[in-house]
Amino acid sequence: MLALRLIERKRDGGRIEPGEWRALANAYAVGHVPDYQMAAFLMACFLRGLDRGETHALTEAMLRSGDSLDLAYLDRPRIDKHSTGGVGDKVSIVLAPLIACLGVAVPMMSGRGLGHTGGTLDKLEAIPGFDTNLTLDAARGLLETLNCALIGQTAEIARADPKMYALRDATGTVESIPLIAASIMSKKLAEGLTGLVLDVKRGSGAFLPELQRGLELAQMMIELGLDHQCPVVALITAMDRPLGRACGNALEVEEAILALRGEGPDDLMQVTYALGAEMLLLARCVEDRGEAQRRMTDAISTGRAAEHFQRIIEAQGGNPAVVDDPSILPQSAEVEVFTAPRRGFVSRVEPRAVGRGIAAMGGGRTTMEDTLDLSVGFVITARPGDWVEEGEAIATIFARDRTGIDSGRLTLRSAIMLADEADPPLPLVSHRVSAAGVEVLEP
Amino acid sequence: MLALRLIERKRDGGRIEPGEWRALANAYAVGHVPDYQMAAFLMACFLRGLDRGETHALTEAMLRSGDSLDLAYLDRPRIDKHSTGGVGDKVSIVLAPLIACLGVAVPMMSGRGLGHTGGTLDKLEAIPGFDTNLTLDAARGLLETLNCALIGQTAEIARADPKMYALRDATGTVESIPLIAASIMSKKLAEGLTGLVLDVKRGSGAFLPELQRGLELAQMMIELGLDHQCPVVALITAMDRPLGRACGNALEVEEAILALRGEGPDDLMQVTYALGAEMLLLARCVEDRGEAQRRMTDAISTGRAAEHFQRIIEAQGGNPAVVDDPSILPQSAEVEVFTAPRRGFVSRVEPRAVGRGIAAMGGGRTTMEDTLDLSVGFVITARPGDWVEEGEAIATIFARDRTGIDSGRLTLRSAIMLADEADPPLPLVSHRVSAAGVEVLEP
Repeated sequence: MLALRLIERKRDGGRIEPGEWRALANAYAVGHVPDYQMAAFLMACFLRGLDRGETHALTEAMLRSGDSLDLAYLDRPRIDKHSTGGVGDKVSIVLAPLIACLGVAVPMMSGRGLGHTGGTLDKLEAIPGFDTNLTLDAARGLLETLNCALIGQTAEIARADPKMYALRDATGTVESIPLIAASIMSKKLAEGLTGLVLDVKRGSGAFLPELQRGLELAQMMIELGLDHQCPVVALITAMDRPLGRACGNALEVEEAILALRGEGPDDLMQVTYALGAEMLLLARCVEDRGEAQRRMTDAISTGRAAEHFQRIIEAQGGNPAVVDDPSILPQSAEVEVFTAPRRGFVSRVEPRAVGRGIAAMGGGRTTMEDTLDLSVGFVITARPGDWVEEGEAIATIFARDRTGIDSGRLTLRSAIMLADEADPPLPLVSHRVSAAGVEVLEP
Repeated sequence: MLALRLIERKRDGGRIEPGEWRALANAYAVGHVPDYQMAAFLMACFLRGLDRGETHALTEAMLRSGDSLDLAYLDRPRIDKHSTGGVGDKVSIVLAPLIACLGVAVPMMSGRGLGHTGGTLDKLEAIPGFDTNLTLDAARGLLETLNCALIGQTAEIARADPKMYALRDATGTVESIPLIAASIMSKKLAEGLTGLVLDVKRGSGAFLPELQRGLELAQMMIELGLDHQCPVVALITAMDRPLGRACGNALEVEEAILALRGEGPDDLMQVTYALGAEMLLLARCVEDRGEAQRRMTDAISTGRAAEHFQRIIEAQGGNPAVVDDPSILPQSAEVEVFTAPRRGFVSRVEPRAVGRGIAAMGGGRTTMEDTLDLSVGFVITARPGDWVEEGEAIATIFARDRTGIDSGRLTLRSAIMLADEADPPLPLVSHRVSAAGVEVLEP
């Protein structure tokens, strides 16, 4: 009867009290509230909204529905980065070892890809032997010795959240700012962080394409962080085109390794450094952005960051040789160069089309049960604004068979638009949001 | 994927097309759309509303999701009555044999009680042996020979509806006028009627207590009827107090039998005759209300109506002796007279409190799985506006044990309010709604 009463109240625009959120999250986590009641409740939340206090209470309720990493005993800053998701976004795989080797604990709990977006867990599993399925105890051990653990959301953390997230995905209740904020923050707060950096994507490939909605989400998560003495800083970054050149699980791991060796594409490095600097500042390891930048480029040029990634891979059961020889990653059976069908400016590289194309080739999920071919994907070298000649190579397709190549070719034909003129793409890192407010960054 | 697309569209205030309603109703009826998706969709419908065309399409989709009674071969008018539900409402049990014995086919498909309201099916099953679980073929046979079949909604009729109704009941999506209208009309149209009379209740014990909402519901159902060449007339009747004196399954059957024998309480007879006159007018069996009234009182005073009920009971496997001797109905183990705790006017007899009190004593359902004790309930002789002296008998409690009596006493203490003055209750039959508009009736 509890659930029905809360559904009716939220339906009529009423308020749910903290104790009620707690009871509901716990009852749902253990199966005492059925999915259909939670689905009706979530739709009422989507359409009626949650106020600040309710969002706080829901976050708290989900956080308390499970265990936490409980890292307070680590005498180090503990900073994580979270992205709202996009295509070609392999920043986590670069940032985790890079920031960990600079003395900050990075307890990175990641998710799997769904829909057009990829997931860090799937990407990491392209490394032969790599195990993301650690217990909380094992993760604590790695954080103590290597400042880093790259793991999935275990069943012990924020129990109500994975179940509720899967339900939202199936019931059209994902794009609600309070529900997104509570879902992310309940997991991140369970990591026992001393600071969190958010990469809030905007543009056609983002969850919330409009800047205004991204800013709202950032501000709400900053407030939820404040409630738990966890300072949060958000950068708004561009997802109107894929980030970097590689899109697809193994291909993105290869590009992340190149980035750790100092050979990453400019846009990927720029986003990585911007987010990394915020992590180091939150950790109070550096005085300013200049020092942060120097320490990061230094860690990369000296090989320390790549070497640290090797240690992490080894500790999580993977083959560390991959850092020196990325060819031991899964290789696709078929490869084909894609050339420009006409001369002109590259006016768009549409991330959703690219992401869906990868899924169609077997490299992404449409339901959580799909198994992936981690080798497939694209490397797209043409960038929005580039001038290309007809017949010029602008991308490479990686597929498991000729059908996959054909499908990939169709994808790129619609995803890469060529025209006589091209509007400038969105600025790569455009806004910084903190408890102090929104700052527009110089391009 | 269909369901998700429709959820998102309705959520955003969009329109669902007729073919989509059909596909959704069919997919849900056979289990291809899970309850949780339908629940989210129904909440979006509840909050965003359905326009006239969508309500028509949903009705049509539910109607087509199953079989129909297909009575066109009967060369007689086929008229049903439907009530939006209340406490003490045994009108169907009186009307069905009364109108059937006057030459009109009455294919009466009824429901079970839920929440504070009773259901005709439960009441009929108080008659020893009575079987409401007939096949459509058996029902057609009874309609041919006796002009009447008193049955439940079979699995073959409007398949999507019972499943969707149970889901709405559990997810706070019942009180939506388009959803209520489509649910009622899809079942009624499946009966193959040539006319339908609605008893739309108003007042504190009604589903939609406000007059305005009741009128809206009536008008929507009239329009849905017009779409199918089925004229619909609605009367707005009072449910700010129970109808008649008896509340509880067997007790109400006994009162219905008394009514058929000419010994029914005034308010019950007045509502029965008002609805019955509309049925006879729709059937074109009479010229005017005066003739309708004469034919009905005649059928009762000559014993024809009671005798017809006996035949129907016998044809449906029940013991027809009940009409002469209602004491063969289930009798409660404990009976206690309830007396007025003070002198004064009866200011309220609250139907919801009475209905919930019966459920608490075992005579009503809180979930569809509950089994009922059909013998329990109340006979409340005091009417709103009556003057009573302290200690005067104003009701009788029927319970299965002393605990039930105690519970019943508590119920009546809060349900029957005594005061120094009393506002007049709602007029019993206040409005008549037809395709021509709303008519306010003289008290």
